[in-house]
Amino acid sequence: MKIDVLTLFPEMFSGPFDSSIIKRARDRGLLEICFTDIRDFSGNKHNTVDDTPYGGGAGMVMQTPPIMRALEYVRNKRGGMPARVVLMCPTGLTFDQYWARDLAREEHLVIICGHYEGVDERVRELAVTDELSIGDYVLTGGELPAMVVVDAVSRMIPGVLGEKASAEEDSFYQGLLEYPQYTRPCVYGELSVPEILMSGHHERIRLWRRRQALLKTLERRPDLLREEVLNSEDRGILREIMEHIQGIIKR
Amino acid sequence: MKIDVLTLFPEMFSGPFDSSIIKRARDRGLLEICFTDIRDFSGNKHNTVDDTPYGGGAGMVMQTPPIMRALEYVRNKRGGMPARVVLMCPTGLTFDQYWARDLAREEHLVIICGHYEGVDERVRELAVTDELSIGDYVLTGGELPAMVVVDAVSRMIPGVLGEKASAEEDSFYQGLLEYPQYTRPCVYGELSVPEILMSGHHERIRLWRRRQALLKTLERRPDLLREEVLNSEDRGILREIMEHIQGIIKR
Repeated sequence: MKIDVLTLFPEMFSGPFDSSIIKRARDRGLLEICFTDIRDFSGNKHNTVDDTPYGGGAGMVMQTPPIMRALEYVRNKRGGMPARVVLMCPTGLTFDQYWARDLAREEHLVIICGHYEGVDERVRELAVTDELSIGDYVLTGGELPAMVVVDAVSRMIPGVLGEKASAEEDSFYQGLLEYPQYTRPCVYGELSVPEILMSGHHERIRLWRRRQALLKTLERRPDLLREEVLNSEDRGILREIMEHIQGIIKR
Repeated sequence: MKIDVLTLFPEMFSGPFDSSIIKRARDRGLLEICFTDIRDFSGNKHNTVDDTPYGGGAGMVMQTPPIMRALEYVRNKRGGMPARVVLMCPTGLTFDQYWARDLAREEHLVIICGHYEGVDERVRELAVTDELSIGDYVLTGGELPAMVVVDAVSRMIPGVLGEKASAEEDSFYQGLLEYPQYTRPCVYGELSVPEILMSGHHERIRLWRRRQALLKTLERRPDLLREEVLNSEDRGILREIMEHIQGIIKR
């Protein structure tokens, strides 16, 4: 997969993609990420790429021509227009794991990092196929969101993760939050690892973990507990929890 | 404000905070961000900080002792325990602008970046005050989420943003998505800037923008259009839009 990031701050990307899983995927040729500086396409000697908004107001707006020229450059380099041009902006739809899986199917993805007060609306009309936001908070620019999207999408490319199991057990992949994890030491201060995890009963451990995952999701993200993520075993566990609560109430 | 980030990958943070608004805030002494490598507190000569999970399963779990020692180090350096110790993890509550404003009130904030299959549950019990996730997607680690939180929180510290207006007009600050923005050139290809924005009628421009913001939010994020974010003018605009739709239906 090829990802082109169009940004005013290519230097921001120096640290994040030089370590860990993404670096290995790049080294193995599974993933190619290029950063294109929009400022190189300003078309003027002052290298300006933004201007004040029509109609007044605070801040600066990124202009259409430099972005379109940068996109043209990327298109020529790759020998054709990408199917998907994503603009990172606060008014976009909320990126989630379904989006990550969907974008990971593309051969070539372009991500434009919005900045300042925003991007001239005509860029959206002319070139953007998807506008995405990574969450309901205000950030300085689209660079961190682009990193988040690149990371989440890269993990979904076949072969990028060493163990397939690792990806599938992750939270949100199976629709529930993850169960609590424990590792050595067995005792830390007054806190010990739950006995069941050291029992060696694989089936009981599996059930305990599923129950913990259901309870954690019920506690923190009840919005995720929708019917379609539950199997018949989950329904059994939830019924048992319900009965447990009823037993307490009756007492 | 002082932010301590505990991480296994401090080098990932080299690019993102060396540019833009955060850099200026650091230069001006409004913000101090330090990165502490958890591996420095492994306590063993192989520098291992993770181990296999009790009860079996794929992946590795970050151990309690190195994280607690790193936290102790940070506490001693700052002369006391921070009020808030945030763990970035997929099972956390969803970070949003309300969280950003809340955390920006702290003098000293510690952010722990989770990694691998997770963090030993006892770290949560012993030290963590808040568990946060930045959205419903799977990422390689807590580093990018920590950067997102640092960026969003930093912008809320008084004095960090040059123009106060700029922060307040941002999306999500006023509870609606932002209206479309346009800047020079006035005509690009076949696309022109909407005439109203060049009319000079400040009041009409303000109303047009509010209407656009309401329509964009209605289209993309109807979940944000709650009663408490609407003023009486908004209600008037929405009533007018309703009447417009009714007029079309009747025809």
